[in-house]
Amino acid sequence: MSRVWNFSAGPAALPQAVLERAQREMLDWNGSGASVMEQSHRGKRFIEMAARAEADLRSLLAVSADYAVLFLQGGATQHFAQIPMNLADAGDSADYIVSGHWSEKAVSEAAPYLRVNVAASGEAGHYLALPPRESWQLDPQAAYVHYTPNETIHGVEFHDIPEVGAVPLVADMSSNILSEPLDVSRFGLIYAGAQKNIGPSGLVVMIIRRDLLQRAGRPMARIFRYAEHAAHDSMLNTPNTWGWYLAGLTFQWLQEQGGVAAIGERNRAKAELLYRSIDGSGGYYRNPVEPSARSRMNVPFTLHDAALDAAFLKESETAGLLALKGHKAVGGMRASLYNAVPPEAVQVLTAFMRDFAQRHG
Amino acid sequence: MSRVWNFSAGPAALPQAVLERAQREMLDWNGSGASVMEQSHRGKRFIEMAARAEADLRSLLAVSADYAVLFLQGGATQHFAQIPMNLADAGDSADYIVSGHWSEKAVSEAAPYLRVNVAASGEAGHYLALPPRESWQLDPQAAYVHYTPNETIHGVEFHDIPEVGAVPLVADMSSNILSEPLDVSRFGLIYAGAQKNIGPSGLVVMIIRRDLLQRAGRPMARIFRYAEHAAHDSMLNTPNTWGWYLAGLTFQWLQEQGGVAAIGERNRAKAELLYRSIDGSGGYYRNPVEPSARSRMNVPFTLHDAALDAAFLKESETAGLLALKGHKAVGGMRASLYNAVPPEAVQVLTAFMRDFAQRHG
Repeated sequence: MSRVWNFSAGPAALPQAVLERAQREMLDWNGSGASVMEQSHRGKRFIEMAARAEADLRSLLAVSADYAVLFLQGGATQHFAQIPMNLADAGDSADYIVSGHWSEKAVSEAAPYLRVNVAASGEAGHYLALPPRESWQLDPQAAYVHYTPNETIHGVEFHDIPEVGAVPLVADMSSNILSEPLDVSRFGLIYAGAQKNIGPSGLVVMIIRRDLLQRAGRPMARIFRYAEHAAHDSMLNTPNTWGWYLAGLTFQWLQEQGGVAAIGERNRAKAELLYRSIDGSGGYYRNPVEPSARSRMNVPFTLHDAALDAAFLKESETAGLLALKGHKAVGGMRASLYNAVPPEAVQVLTAFMRDFAQRHG
Repeated sequence: MSRVWNFSAGPAALPQAVLERAQREMLDWNGSGASVMEQSHRGKRFIEMAARAEADLRSLLAVSADYAVLFLQGGATQHFAQIPMNLADAGDSADYIVSGHWSEKAVSEAAPYLRVNVAASGEAGHYLALPPRESWQLDPQAAYVHYTPNETIHGVEFHDIPEVGAVPLVADMSSNILSEPLDVSRFGLIYAGAQKNIGPSGLVVMIIRRDLLQRAGRPMARIFRYAEHAAHDSMLNTPNTWGWYLAGLTFQWLQEQGGVAAIGERNRAKAELLYRSIDGSGGYYRNPVEPSARSRMNVPFTLHDAALDAAFLKESETAGLLALKGHKAVGGMRASLYNAVPPEAVQVLTAFMRDFAQRHG
């Protein structure tokens, strides 16, 4: 067994303690004599586990009873489409803030279902900064305002929740949920693909204000209605039981770490260490993002000479540093620093970066 | 470690060898130093594994190049809706054969998207028999004919593929895929929730004839289009990577068992043993299904006196026989005998049933 330092943007590193527990329980979960994957989701054992996972998530983020918590499938991408299906009529419009690749995707999947108003976009600036709140052209009649608090490819992050008045704020938090304390009451709907800060892929966690479940939405099958999923405790059909279980273990692990306040401090320190190493490299490494918009979760950086990229990737892999290759849209490198990436990983990475710069000066 | 004999209707038993391998590889998969859940689905290792899983499934069922194989999410229930969205225009109709609970569900989820013609139904006979092929009122203009080859709750199964002419035949094979040899060329589309014969829940495997990918379907988001999933090797967005991996291990296990011909023999023998025990119990146990329609996968049965149900469930659980409680729609007991349920499990069950009958005679 030799575990690497895993900087994957997603599916991403999981807490090693969670993996070890899942490993131990693989053939005999909870005294049942069978794997958690081999249990009916309608059985007493599974229902208790599922309810505890929800309770732990509610506790971690202080989610009030005004919100339903759903465990769904389809990835955030499916919900790019399903959110407008549920929250809007065909004649409605919604405001979208475009701050990078994922908010672009959210727009294109929503477009068949309503009139998308791009209320602000960072595209002209190559998504190296966030469109300032005062530039947003919001429509007070919009069905909702959608934004992406953290963009994994461009490495930009909103560090404050934007004020949007009475229109419900909808956030794709796939890449930053549970990474720091959050005032859930500011949102109408929060959703997140699990595969970054929660668990394995194939699971989506949604926190939705109950009044939004009353919206009629479009004519559609029952399986697409969030209100139906809420009414059936996310067991309208068979859920991703393994994903739900791993999410529950991750929530317990987060509590053991001291909750989102403690993990938030740790995440801030991890990101600061890496940005400091980049900025202090005398131009050897570079992160092009406007400092106030830099992501704590995803840190893209380039080498001063792209001809060194291949050597950097090869040597970093040999040094036990996994998945540092940047997304093709921006090139270079990227280190993702989600909750399960320990501080040691960033120390090893920054030491490697210094060493690499010296050897390939 | 004490593993039970698991008769769950789904999520159901997985092959123990598959679980043991997944357990071994949990923290360090394929020499990567990380779990399979912690890998990018766009990485070389994952793509190779995914391609091998598809190739193994193609080999097991002799799937020709005329068909695409997709690894999707949402459960069969989502595809009850997504299939009409993809295969039909709003003005089209499709023929549905209703043979139990799951085909009823398929009808209700399809109804918002096209005109459903219930071409035959076993409802009047309480789904204890299958509507005879000659009674089906098929429409030669139908977009497709949908049926459910095996019904898990009512315990009825089609033992031959119905002839439906030129209209594409669509089958929800969630509960009997890979349980015996299959002539895939008779179908337009086969789909299956994984959690019975393939792997964990949260994964849907689909085999779709490529000409059907050309159908325009309804206006909808790209994420709902099967053609898009096919064009992107089921990685249009992040797939359920754990489910795909477990499915691949199960396909390898099936090959080691001798493929679907060998597992088909084994499944037939398992079901015969149980039905023989029921029929030979002098009325102590009863299965009400018309013999030619009896399912090899799901065997519902009642005790001659329902007052004994609680004792039967308690004692069977003590004897290490899990999940024998019948579905509330039909009551009594149910033993599901999917691929991963070994013959020994049925021997232990039938011995227990004999013993129980003697003690509670």
